[in-house]
Amino acid sequence: MSILVVGSIALDTVKTPYGLSKDILGGSATYFSISASFFSPVKLVAIVGTDFPSKYIKIFKKRKIDLKGLTIKEGKTFRWQAEYSDDLNKVTTISTQLNVFSDFRPKILDEYKKAKFVFLANIDPKLQDYILSQVKSPQLVAADTMSHWIKEDTKDLINFLKKVDIFFLNDTEARLLTGENNLLKAAKSILKFGPKRIIIKKGEHGSMMVSNDSIFCLPSFLLEKVYDPTGAGDTFAGGLMGYLAMKRKINEEILRKALAYGTVMATFVIEDFSLKKLLKITRYDIKNRLKEFCNLVKFDYDRL
Amino acid sequence: MSILVVGSIALDTVKTPYGLSKDILGGSATYFSISASFFSPVKLVAIVGTDFPSKYIKIFKKRKIDLKGLTIKEGKTFRWQAEYSDDLNKVTTISTQLNVFSDFRPKILDEYKKAKFVFLANIDPKLQDYILSQVKSPQLVAADTMSHWIKEDTKDLINFLKKVDIFFLNDTEARLLTGENNLLKAAKSILKFGPKRIIIKKGEHGSMMVSNDSIFCLPSFLLEKVYDPTGAGDTFAGGLMGYLAMKRKINEEILRKALAYGTVMATFVIEDFSLKKLLKITRYDIKNRLKEFCNLVKFDYDRL
Repeated sequence: MSILVVGSIALDTVKTPYGLSKDILGGSATYFSISASFFSPVKLVAIVGTDFPSKYIKIFKKRKIDLKGLTIKEGKTFRWQAEYSDDLNKVTTISTQLNVFSDFRPKILDEYKKAKFVFLANIDPKLQDYILSQVKSPQLVAADTMSHWIKEDTKDLINFLKKVDIFFLNDTEARLLTGENNLLKAAKSILKFGPKRIIIKKGEHGSMMVSNDSIFCLPSFLLEKVYDPTGAGDTFAGGLMGYLAMKRKINEEILRKALAYGTVMATFVIEDFSLKKLLKITRYDIKNRLKEFCNLVKFDYDRL
Repeated sequence: MSILVVGSIALDTVKTPYGLSKDILGGSATYFSISASFFSPVKLVAIVGTDFPSKYIKIFKKRKIDLKGLTIKEGKTFRWQAEYSDDLNKVTTISTQLNVFSDFRPKILDEYKKAKFVFLANIDPKLQDYILSQVKSPQLVAADTMSHWIKEDTKDLINFLKKVDIFFLNDTEARLLTGENNLLKAAKSILKFGPKRIIIKKGEHGSMMVSNDSIFCLPSFLLEKVYDPTGAGDTFAGGLMGYLAMKRKINEEILRKALAYGTVMATFVIEDFSLKKLLKITRYDIKNRLKEFCNLVKFDYDRL
């Protein structure tokens, strides 16, 4: 089953203790779609400027991502510049230039309107809502958000959440949205807004998934070398959603495995700048790392 | 198999957003031994003053803890006063009065010297070493520490670590001891000092166990209500060591289960002040919560 993803494509300039990378391929929809493409076909709806390098277009094409929904508009591509702290735990945005992205209000192509799996990356919740209204009968709607929308557009975000099956956010965002420090309480508060499941991304501390009748926690896969955490959350969501769309069926067991796949995909992306590492791996590498991950978290439940 | 534990017994005055409790039973050896006693017999070596309430002595006796190694000395019991932040994530020590504990340099009873399982709580590493030197041929030596010793007595601590099979510390302490922010790197650095295994306690983020040939990560058991985190780390170690001593055999599989038992024991202690909740539970409650915990972290590894 294919996934429709709507979000940003950006040119990032990122500084980490390991170096500075200029105008590298970034954006939520980028990380999501490359990651998901290892599991399921991806239809990408996004916008770039005429300055967008053709070598980056080739990257999407190489991963067989459907680009009929990609608008190339006269002007400059969305740009994000940021710097990470020495321990990589803090990121400071130096500049955000929306450029052509500021007019992004996509009409979904007819052939995309039948999409069953939809991922709305961390864009304006009004835009998420507008896009979703064009999709005919989705089976699974997932959405992400960011602190900016929680602060500036809480009402629209909360309204939109009613239509969401899986709502992704990170620990800081969950606390910000609810005023609850305890993440389990925060997740349960968010469930009251209407989404069926909450997935809270906790970075090096793993992730948790909460619905009205289940809770699941997963540690992260510990790496000794982390070069650039940019895109980890979207890569996680991409792996997770890609696996779900591949399975077609959604149940607790499949969702739990999907979280494990998402975790594993995120480990690849942080091992190098931008998508460098992610573009080198194969399904064989994913399977292998998943086995390693299982070994890292497994204990014998059945003979306690 | 019984466990020999050496550490502090204290009278704690603790303020959390849920209230103030004065002169309640505390101390590392207290939490450890009560928790371990659900699994294995415990021999306690500690010191209290003549002001130590007999009702607290009864608590140890009720849990069948061997108190032949408990010294009651003229003077006042060790006292610790602290206040937690609103989110319970930060604790500020208001005062520490060592009192009779400042002269604690125990001679281990002959009948205790044959102990096979030994836990040396977070006391002066020179004292940990002195105590261990009296134990004849331990099968498993575990020790904890605290920031104070890492800062003030690094050399003795590092020397002592050569003799340790399982070294417990929390994430802050692991970073402090190694200067490494990445916890996996930190654990591997500590392994070089000689201990066979490192167990890093990460509070609400769970725990990890690292040896030269294995890594294991476990999330915490999420609770919506946490009243007082005091003693969680020692209760975790107590459950873990108690389970190991019950099993007698040590291997990776048993150690992983031991971490799960430790995690579950810690959830009980933080549900109320001091040992209130821990003293109410039965082995049946432990089994039940362990099942819940397994359900929270389990996914189908075998059919990925």
